[in-house]
Amino acid sequence: MGLLFFLFLATTISDGSPAKETIPGDKVLLLGPGVDRAPGLSCLSWRLAVETNNLIDWDIVPGQCEDYVGHYMMGHQYRKDSSMVTDQAILHAQSLTLGRDGKDVWVFDIDETSLSNLPYYACHGFGAEPYDPKLKKEWELEGKAPALPETLKLYEKLLSLGIRVVFLTGKSEEMRNVTSKNLRQVGYHTWEKLILKATSYSGETAVAYKSSERGKLVKSGYRIVGNIGDQWSDISGTNPGNRTFKLPDPMYYVA
Amino acid sequence: MGLLFFLFLATTISDGSPAKETIPGDKVLLLGPGVDRAPGLSCLSWRLAVETNNLIDWDIVPGQCEDYVGHYMMGHQYRKDSSMVTDQAILHAQSLTLGRDGKDVWVFDIDETSLSNLPYYACHGFGAEPYDPKLKKEWELEGKAPALPETLKLYEKLLSLGIRVVFLTGKSEEMRNVTSKNLRQVGYHTWEKLILKATSYSGETAVAYKSSERGKLVKSGYRIVGNIGDQWSDISGTNPGNRTFKLPDPMYYVA
Repeated sequence: MGLLFFLFLATTISDGSPAKETIPGDKVLLLGPGVDRAPGLSCLSWRLAVETNNLIDWDIVPGQCEDYVGHYMMGHQYRKDSSMVTDQAILHAQSLTLGRDGKDVWVFDIDETSLSNLPYYACHGFGAEPYDPKLKKEWELEGKAPALPETLKLYEKLLSLGIRVVFLTGKSEEMRNVTSKNLRQVGYHTWEKLILKATSYSGETAVAYKSSERGKLVKSGYRIVGNIGDQWSDISGTNPGNRTFKLPDPMYYVA
Repeated sequence: MGLLFFLFLATTISDGSPAKETIPGDKVLLLGPGVDRAPGLSCLSWRLAVETNNLIDWDIVPGQCEDYVGHYMMGHQYRKDSSMVTDQAILHAQSLTLGRDGKDVWVFDIDETSLSNLPYYACHGFGAEPYDPKLKKEWELEGKAPALPETLKLYEKLLSLGIRVVFLTGKSEEMRNVTSKNLRQVGYHTWEKLILKATSYSGETAVAYKSSERGKLVKSGYRIVGNIGDQWSDISGTNPGNRTFKLPDPMYYVA
């Protein structure tokens, strides 16, 4: 390893040129809101930057990463990555000392967390097509989203431990019936609360809306012992919870 | 894609069994502090869980991921992933409206952010060997750590924009001379402050120590317009900064 390492140091650490050749800085810098193609972009780096919250406020998946994201989402790695997260969530839940008052709750986001819209996104470029609110709503109104199997496993484990579940979603209040029916159909058979976005929050960010609703939970005496979502906006802001968990989602960004 | 998708749904989303077969849940659940080997573990999922702060308080890189982490760290992907982060940081810096009072600062962590200890870790299993404080200190006392080329590029860009740099490190105060000499030698030629960990903080977490020191900066009138580190503890806690950036580091965890 010694010689290889010094060769490496000589060619990359000390002057950084190979990295520059592979990703011209000015091209990557172009990648911002409204820019859907960046020559030389590494889709692996793009996805990692998305998952770590380094890349924010992006509109759509870069065109050249559509296949990469599609293969990821449809393959085993998305499932394995999700399992790793929910397994850590279960470890955390098992480590807790719970009250006996039924006030320990775990907050679940819904889209790409409890329910999967992958059947929809598979037909719409895995996030590489511009967001179409009308088509997306039609899909949601069908109420046919499957469960994310890893989240459903976490859900069942939490209930068995005596932790109650609160669903907190950016879906609008008018979607209450179809959402609760969809949730029940795929195995989420009970919950403490199902909080949907009231019209009074329209125009507010997910961080503001979700922080506000979590604040109400805490004020009502609930203890948020865990919180899981696919967006950083699910687990940021105030009262995020005792510990938060970020599921993968390279398909879209919610502020 | 239609047929493929429904096949996929039938085999994974609906019952989740392939994921279960690939990573037996009970094995992954064993992966916690002190556990260095987890049969069936996906090293890709492990690294993503580390980078997204889903896996915390881990001691060492799982034994079976040593080669994976080594190849990642020595290869182009680590460089590309780092470039993606610092390019976003530059975009952020360029978007700022700065004061003309010299009070806009960017906080830089040092180890695996400004300086690279990769020459040390390459000889010590890339984090898969138990941490040896004596050997690590000997390496640090040599003062021969190279710069991370992407961070050095960010540093130069920030200075050209008029943003001042504050280094905030968990290295102890007694390392001041060797650290400042090392920083200068590799190109970090100036800084507003170089904050090392005073003995009064001994026993405190990095989050507590760094939050406290950032609080002092803010109290002194500095505006923390950005903050970059390789650990979540660099960019969590109070006064994290206007925006934070997380560089990759699958070699070790600092609480």
